[in-house]
Amino acid sequence: MKTSSHDDTLFENNIGEIKGQQGKYIIRVKKMTDCQGDAEVAKSPLELYEQLTAQGDEVRTLKTAKADKAEIDAAVQLLLKLKVGYKQMTGQDFKAGCPPSDNSVAPNNGPAAVDADDEDTVDPWNVSTSNAKGVDYDKLIVRFGSSKIDKELVDRIEKVLGQKPHRFLRRGIFFSHRDMQQVLDAYEKHKSFYLYTGRGPSSEAMHVGHLIPFIFTKWLQDVFDIPLVIQMTDDEKYLWKDLTLEDCHHFAVENAKDIIACGFDVNKTFIFSDLDYMGATPEFYRNVVKIQKHVTFNQVKGIFGFTDSDCIGKISFPAIQAAPSFSSSFPQIFKGRKDIQCLIPCAIDQDPYFRMTRDVAPRIGYPKPALLHSTFFPALQGAQTKMSASDANSSIFLTDTPKQLKNKVNKHAFSGGKDTVEEHRKYGGNPDIDVAFMYLTFFLEDDEQLEKIRQDYTSGALLTGELKKILIETLQPMIAQHQERRKQVTDEIVKQFMTPRPLNFNF
Amino acid sequence: MKTSSHDDTLFENNIGEIKGQQGKYIIRVKKMTDCQGDAEVAKSPLELYEQLTAQGDEVRTLKTAKADKAEIDAAVQLLLKLKVGYKQMTGQDFKAGCPPSDNSVAPNNGPAAVDADDEDTVDPWNVSTSNAKGVDYDKLIVRFGSSKIDKELVDRIEKVLGQKPHRFLRRGIFFSHRDMQQVLDAYEKHKSFYLYTGRGPSSEAMHVGHLIPFIFTKWLQDVFDIPLVIQMTDDEKYLWKDLTLEDCHHFAVENAKDIIACGFDVNKTFIFSDLDYMGATPEFYRNVVKIQKHVTFNQVKGIFGFTDSDCIGKISFPAIQAAPSFSSSFPQIFKGRKDIQCLIPCAIDQDPYFRMTRDVAPRIGYPKPALLHSTFFPALQGAQTKMSASDANSSIFLTDTPKQLKNKVNKHAFSGGKDTVEEHRKYGGNPDIDVAFMYLTFFLEDDEQLEKIRQDYTSGALLTGELKKILIETLQPMIAQHQERRKQVTDEIVKQFMTPRPLNFNF
Repeated sequence: MKTSSHDDTLFENNIGEIKGQQGKYIIRVKKMTDCQGDAEVAKSPLELYEQLTAQGDEVRTLKTAKADKAEIDAAVQLLLKLKVGYKQMTGQDFKAGCPPSDNSVAPNNGPAAVDADDEDTVDPWNVSTSNAKGVDYDKLIVRFGSSKIDKELVDRIEKVLGQKPHRFLRRGIFFSHRDMQQVLDAYEKHKSFYLYTGRGPSSEAMHVGHLIPFIFTKWLQDVFDIPLVIQMTDDEKYLWKDLTLEDCHHFAVENAKDIIACGFDVNKTFIFSDLDYMGATPEFYRNVVKIQKHVTFNQVKGIFGFTDSDCIGKISFPAIQAAPSFSSSFPQIFKGRKDIQCLIPCAIDQDPYFRMTRDVAPRIGYPKPALLHSTFFPALQGAQTKMSASDANSSIFLTDTPKQLKNKVNKHAFSGGKDTVEEHRKYGGNPDIDVAFMYLTFFLEDDEQLEKIRQDYTSGALLTGELKKILIETLQPMIAQHQERRKQVTDEIVKQFMTPRPLNFNF
Repeated sequence: MKTSSHDDTLFENNIGEIKGQQGKYIIRVKKMTDCQGDAEVAKSPLELYEQLTAQGDEVRTLKTAKADKAEIDAAVQLLLKLKVGYKQMTGQDFKAGCPPSDNSVAPNNGPAAVDADDEDTVDPWNVSTSNAKGVDYDKLIVRFGSSKIDKELVDRIEKVLGQKPHRFLRRGIFFSHRDMQQVLDAYEKHKSFYLYTGRGPSSEAMHVGHLIPFIFTKWLQDVFDIPLVIQMTDDEKYLWKDLTLEDCHHFAVENAKDIIACGFDVNKTFIFSDLDYMGATPEFYRNVVKIQKHVTFNQVKGIFGFTDSDCIGKISFPAIQAAPSFSSSFPQIFKGRKDIQCLIPCAIDQDPYFRMTRDVAPRIGYPKPALLHSTFFPALQGAQTKMSASDANSSIFLTDTPKQLKNKVNKHAFSGGKDTVEEHRKYGGNPDIDVAFMYLTFFLEDDEQLEKIRQDYTSGALLTGELKKILIETLQPMIAQHQERRKQVTDEIVKQFMTPRPLNFNF
């Protein structure tokens, strides 16, 4: 499982992602195909059907011709939006070869569609939006069918734990969930559960954004005192990228060092490479096969947008990311028990895997995993996309020197400030689109200090350079400490974390 | 891998199988889509012309798109077969842009196309023919693109081994091969190779037909003195049938006992359940993933006829049957060497798996496996289909008592004899369609005795009852001995065979 990287570029489309996001897309279709301003003019159902058919052919042709990724992406995006628009207009799903029936008109054809936020793309391989404030997460909740982490839930977590919730919860960075109330109920009744998160190791380079789920997971482990499993999907990276198995496995071990450096307790944490663990524990493969028996190609096509040209490894991979959601995949830890519920903290782009998992779970006699979804960590250039390891200038790497970090922030961090000091003093800056401020919401612990910075920046009292300086001074020691801790992580320690074994819990 | 069972009924169609078998396919298509009796109705010349034109376009598209070689090859094969069929139907060569003239009727439209042999169905899940003599194996060789095991090859095997070839070779029961000459070349140069065969354990019941590949493999192991791996595809049976994982694994262990009872040497033989071995050896999963990366859904759709409604487990399974073809899947035996060639004795219906394997092998740096293909073991009711464990009356089970065996042969074995003794004495019987005689070709070692029986039966000197008596007296001790040997196979012995370990060979 990967939680926040999205540097997979081989993968194109994601039908299922968009399925949930009804009633918005006709407009964008018009924008893309006709002209930018002509947003309100909709086609007839039959015209749209014909356009969809033609666009389907276009995508196939491009794929067959192994066209540029960008070109295919654009065509696929258009296809998806057309499908959503079609559903909205006709109330029916588009089916090739089945033109719309005459009386098909959608109930809610209309205004909701014009919002710029509708153009957010969020799936396990792509995250992008045209909004400088970032993805509209409230709409994503509606689209994915998850639940908002509202004040009531945060308060309940505080009450149940008897301590202040993590800043990621206080500040809406973990903003969405599935069944978290149920997990808290169980916790109050002293019922066990466990944590599962992961990472797709596609290079040695990890950036600060990659740490978000792990920082939060470490906190969850501390406050709940429960077992944690961390999946390194080196098999996934091999299937999706032009890398050797040996590369991917090496990256898994190197990335594990950065993860361990987040402070996990070796007595409570099992980190595993798929390439190793599949061959070490028959129970894991058995769960993979069980899941694979209960998911059809039609389903993964719908959820992940796979096509007939995809390799069979990609097509069956979702079962491998699903399997750690079930406690029986870890007989060393749970002693064969299959009823221990799983809580998965991850970035929202990974949700499609777990929607599938939750669909399969009851059919194979396992509890559905609960989820906590985070927002994305913005690129230095702005929140239109998330930080990516494949673009050095978009990211602050965990290996950056204090000077590199300082230069990157000063040079690349998108500013919400005004062009001149005079204007800034007069009109103030906009923290909502300011990347330095956004990063502080992730990493500055003190709520009052953060609020003061926000106010001062908004009023113009705090200049962009000053804001960036605060960020630099926050990140520099954080990164330095991470580097120091990572240095302590020997091969022997990694091996301990990655050895299948009982943890310090009785089941 | 299963070698001769075909009791999977979940699976419907098999497009790829048929791709190579043009000029016939048309007929079968009509049967499948229209009605069972309507075998003689072929497509019209114009329909065929249109299909050819479309296929020509397809080939061009694939070539332009620089598609996978295997994909292009398959499309070209189909094109060629269509052309042959077109010529046969119209008497004209296909020319693009020139539809068939009205009066184009093939000289031999009819008989050749209507030939009962053309309707043979042979794929990993179905075997059937309308011909009482059984499947036309010569045509199968053409269709699958394998090579005939001719007298020259049998003679060479005799010369290389310095001993009489097994009766299965002498009598054309193993009738087809891929790269067997290459294996013999290697053997003469004292280069190592190994044997791989398998079974799909779908029930405890095994019948005599299931023993064919194992009897032959045992002989190969003895004469070549090489390692043998036997795959029990319990995962496959779980995916295809309405069985639990526990059932399938149990059947794997029980079937292993019958296999061991064939006399394999524990020091030279490794038997493994997929469900166990996948979780015991990371190298096996690594090879599975490598294969899965190099096979697309389009390809398995073409080869195995999978559809979008199939579960992702079925879709990715072929990689699991392919992986044991590569020596690096067994690091315990081959010490990590990946260059040891594999020889696979199996029933011809398993060939699709290994056509796929041979296509992938060079792309992942492994040698292609060689193959030896057997005919099917006929059902008691006749050679139109093979013996099936799911039909008790079609099969002689390894657990049958001498009396059950005698009754089954006497009652159910299809006879090539005449209706009355008088007629039989006068006209003689037909051994080619007589199941008792066919079984003797499998199990009676003495060539001269078999030939005498054939002659006497053909002349009418030998009556059906007498022929059946010979078969019963051949099978009863054989089955009794098998049962005796199986009784000796303790759980401990099974465990030895099924433990991943070095064998008595140095690599």
